[in-house]
Amino acid sequence: MTDKLIIFDTTLRDGEQSPGAAMTREKKIRIARQLEKLGVDVIEAGFAAASPGDFEAVKAVAETIKESTVCSLARASENDVRRAGEAIQPARSGRIHTFIATSPIHMQHKLRMNEDQVIERAVQAVKWALEYTDDVEFSAEDAVRSDMNFLVRVFDEVIRAGAKTLNVPDTVGYSIPAAWGERIKQLIAQVPGSDKVIWSTHCHNDLGLAVANSLSAVMSGARQVECTINGLGERAGNASLEEVVMAVKTRRDVFNLDTRIDTTQIVNTSKLVSSITGYPVQPNKAIVGANAFAHESGIHQDGVLKHRETYEIMRAEDVGWNANKLTLGKLSGRNALRSRFTALHIEFASEDAFNAAFARFKELADRKHEIFDEDLQALVSDEAIAQVDEHYRLVSLRAHCETGILPVARVVMSIGSETREAELHGGGPVDAAFKAIEKIVHSGTELQLYSVNNITSGTDAQGEVTVRLAKGGRIVNGQGADTDIVVASAKAYLNALNKLHGNSERAHPQV
Amino acid sequence: MTDKLIIFDTTLRDGEQSPGAAMTREKKIRIARQLEKLGVDVIEAGFAAASPGDFEAVKAVAETIKESTVCSLARASENDVRRAGEAIQPARSGRIHTFIATSPIHMQHKLRMNEDQVIERAVQAVKWALEYTDDVEFSAEDAVRSDMNFLVRVFDEVIRAGAKTLNVPDTVGYSIPAAWGERIKQLIAQVPGSDKVIWSTHCHNDLGLAVANSLSAVMSGARQVECTINGLGERAGNASLEEVVMAVKTRRDVFNLDTRIDTTQIVNTSKLVSSITGYPVQPNKAIVGANAFAHESGIHQDGVLKHRETYEIMRAEDVGWNANKLTLGKLSGRNALRSRFTALHIEFASEDAFNAAFARFKELADRKHEIFDEDLQALVSDEAIAQVDEHYRLVSLRAHCETGILPVARVVMSIGSETREAELHGGGPVDAAFKAIEKIVHSGTELQLYSVNNITSGTDAQGEVTVRLAKGGRIVNGQGADTDIVVASAKAYLNALNKLHGNSERAHPQV
Repeated sequence: MTDKLIIFDTTLRDGEQSPGAAMTREKKIRIARQLEKLGVDVIEAGFAAASPGDFEAVKAVAETIKESTVCSLARASENDVRRAGEAIQPARSGRIHTFIATSPIHMQHKLRMNEDQVIERAVQAVKWALEYTDDVEFSAEDAVRSDMNFLVRVFDEVIRAGAKTLNVPDTVGYSIPAAWGERIKQLIAQVPGSDKVIWSTHCHNDLGLAVANSLSAVMSGARQVECTINGLGERAGNASLEEVVMAVKTRRDVFNLDTRIDTTQIVNTSKLVSSITGYPVQPNKAIVGANAFAHESGIHQDGVLKHRETYEIMRAEDVGWNANKLTLGKLSGRNALRSRFTALHIEFASEDAFNAAFARFKELADRKHEIFDEDLQALVSDEAIAQVDEHYRLVSLRAHCETGILPVARVVMSIGSETREAELHGGGPVDAAFKAIEKIVHSGTELQLYSVNNITSGTDAQGEVTVRLAKGGRIVNGQGADTDIVVASAKAYLNALNKLHGNSERAHPQV
Repeated sequence: MTDKLIIFDTTLRDGEQSPGAAMTREKKIRIARQLEKLGVDVIEAGFAAASPGDFEAVKAVAETIKESTVCSLARASENDVRRAGEAIQPARSGRIHTFIATSPIHMQHKLRMNEDQVIERAVQAVKWALEYTDDVEFSAEDAVRSDMNFLVRVFDEVIRAGAKTLNVPDTVGYSIPAAWGERIKQLIAQVPGSDKVIWSTHCHNDLGLAVANSLSAVMSGARQVECTINGLGERAGNASLEEVVMAVKTRRDVFNLDTRIDTTQIVNTSKLVSSITGYPVQPNKAIVGANAFAHESGIHQDGVLKHRETYEIMRAEDVGWNANKLTLGKLSGRNALRSRFTALHIEFASEDAFNAAFARFKELADRKHEIFDEDLQALVSDEAIAQVDEHYRLVSLRAHCETGILPVARVVMSIGSETREAELHGGGPVDAAFKAIEKIVHSGTELQLYSVNNITSGTDAQGEVTVRLAKGGRIVNGQGADTDIVVASAKAYLNALNKLHGNSERAHPQV
């Protein structure tokens, strides 16, 4: 007999809380579509009460997605729950996920509430949520440091109130697998009515144990795991979806569980999330790292040749590596491009928008021999970026560098309707371009991170530049892609400045 | 009563087996010195029999390190063990680590040996090793898929032969924590004399469980963990040293074990290994990722302000984040530079070598306002790179790019004693520079990866470029650093070509 494990993806909510990873509505929709294709059961699309922009993003995802349940997070307050309920209203299947902290340290120092008050609020939140959907999830924040007897009381009460999914989070990533599994086992044994609900876990990775803790909970009876693509999330992130799913699949002999995940979509999803959030995946990351299936050792390669399973427990194809990619080039026409975009779930609001993308594609094809799916995604990201609040825009750029003399860059850019230019020297052409922009803008920001990754291989690959700027406590990641690294860098810098210029301040909750 | 956990670092052996991470002797010494400062008990410095270069590297580490045991890996063959024994001879404390596969799949398809032959060879290898040192470790390769009764027999025999440390590897990263702990527990219970030896574990991260499996082994009685900095290693890598150490330290209530690790050296060590191997650390990596201690969430920040422990289970300072760094600048003199190098454990072979570094420092300070420790490390890495087999060398470079026209680069370089130049157009200035180099060199290599990370923050930071080239099954990472990204890229490309030009072919074993 096998059982079903529910995969709850929170890339768009907890993942988005990574510094600088805030996403526009359009970007959330693109990721949500890919998550739907991946076969995720529940997509946590955001925290609707955080801001009008967050509300609209959750609502847009709810309107778009048909195969997955769409969920909004909500603190245990009436306003939060009602905003969440309104945002998920268009969903074919919608869930409200409400939470309150249950550990002494959080109740005393953050909530300033006693146990009875916390229980009353939790029950009330579940009841408000039930006005909008019968699919209500409740989380006991910081369950790892909560008193066991109190946890049993809280869960008992919220089940009576009507919660269908009970989530047990290790909010601070403090647990170790054996103890975490034991805690879940005890809760399931002690909470009345626990057999009528789904038990869930949400683990943070501060000690590198999020996946192991999640799996330990599953072995103790949890049937939902909350996770993110690439393990994105607050601090060291959440349990990585791809590791949880592939562990359950590869060790079916131990878990005897099925998921709905189409594992061949894993690598695509990972690349899309990395590209949209600006968060690179290290080469030695399990499953989705560039080296995860690479073999360097001589002896080892010999072993692989002699018998495939000597060193392989999974096949690269099973997670979507080496998937055949139709490549486009200089001679590809509009129809070829359109059908490729359709396959990538990229839609255009108008024929003009597609025409603009086609023009950029042709321009790129003049400089780059083969155009891969990743190039098209970057091209569209760039296009989408450009449409959102484009207060600062690059008009043209010229840079010159030569060993022995100081590099120089001249930037022409528009600010609103005005065109300005500046030419400056710098330590390198990128530094010179950034200094020229700063001479024009005077943003007063601090550059915290600069990184470049090629989107595909080959010397003519586009570089995708991520620039992290900080100002007054706000952090944004800007991105830009181009075959010219100096141009890509200037675009990324301006993209970050545009994000800072936008005034979308929001609060992010913690589970 | 507390007990001691032995930390065995294999960054210089298993970590080095990551594609392109092969290290020169000088680089191994720099990392080994930092590992000694970190307080690692055993440094596995390499696989002495792999090549004369590997032998020399292990020997050089053995000559340098005083506080840690220095170990060489050796297959269970007479030549391998004797080469390992000779290489560790200069060590104050030296170990030989010999291994043979014990799983049916490996014995049949790779070794083509039966059980009795494997035992005979294992025992013989331990005896050869004892001619050189009484500190002999034996590993049963692919123990995870080995028959339990056979494993007990093998370990029994090698203990009788004189092995002091018995290592149980999960070579293919297949295990899950509960089962792995159970396997170690059974081995310790069933192997005669198991109380007189140290049990060790070596876990691979293919399913993201290497750290959890290692800790589960520790809870079952293992008292040595084999791990690497940043979790580097074959495929998805090994258990990450920093996660293992911080889990044991943070959850002392569970493990009740001490290590010798000075945790405040963790971040420095991570950065050094990343810089030398060209392997970036993703921001959401536990402990050493840039975000590991960053907090984005509004609610969360409020919690942190109200009470520090609301969301913090470790302090950033405890692992060496935000350590005060003395910075140098344009006006810093020779003595300031020399004392900074000394603090960084960077030594120069001659006064001329120091003078060259000082000249480069002054040149850098002209272009960059503040010089951080990371800049000095990059400067010296570049210098060290330049001295090793510099068949190809950059003489000068000029690049020009301008939106709307094709970028162009002119490269002047030397090949041996000859000087050549070429000017080419490309998709960007970096592409143009690479094409110009290729027009001169005709290397026939494939560019697999190109990435840039800034060494410190600020727009005038040096970019550290990693270029991965492949040719005929060989993969090398080249690196270059400069404030000018085009120059850094050309240096990295030439560094990779120089590595391919060197003829050091080596075999790498797998544990």
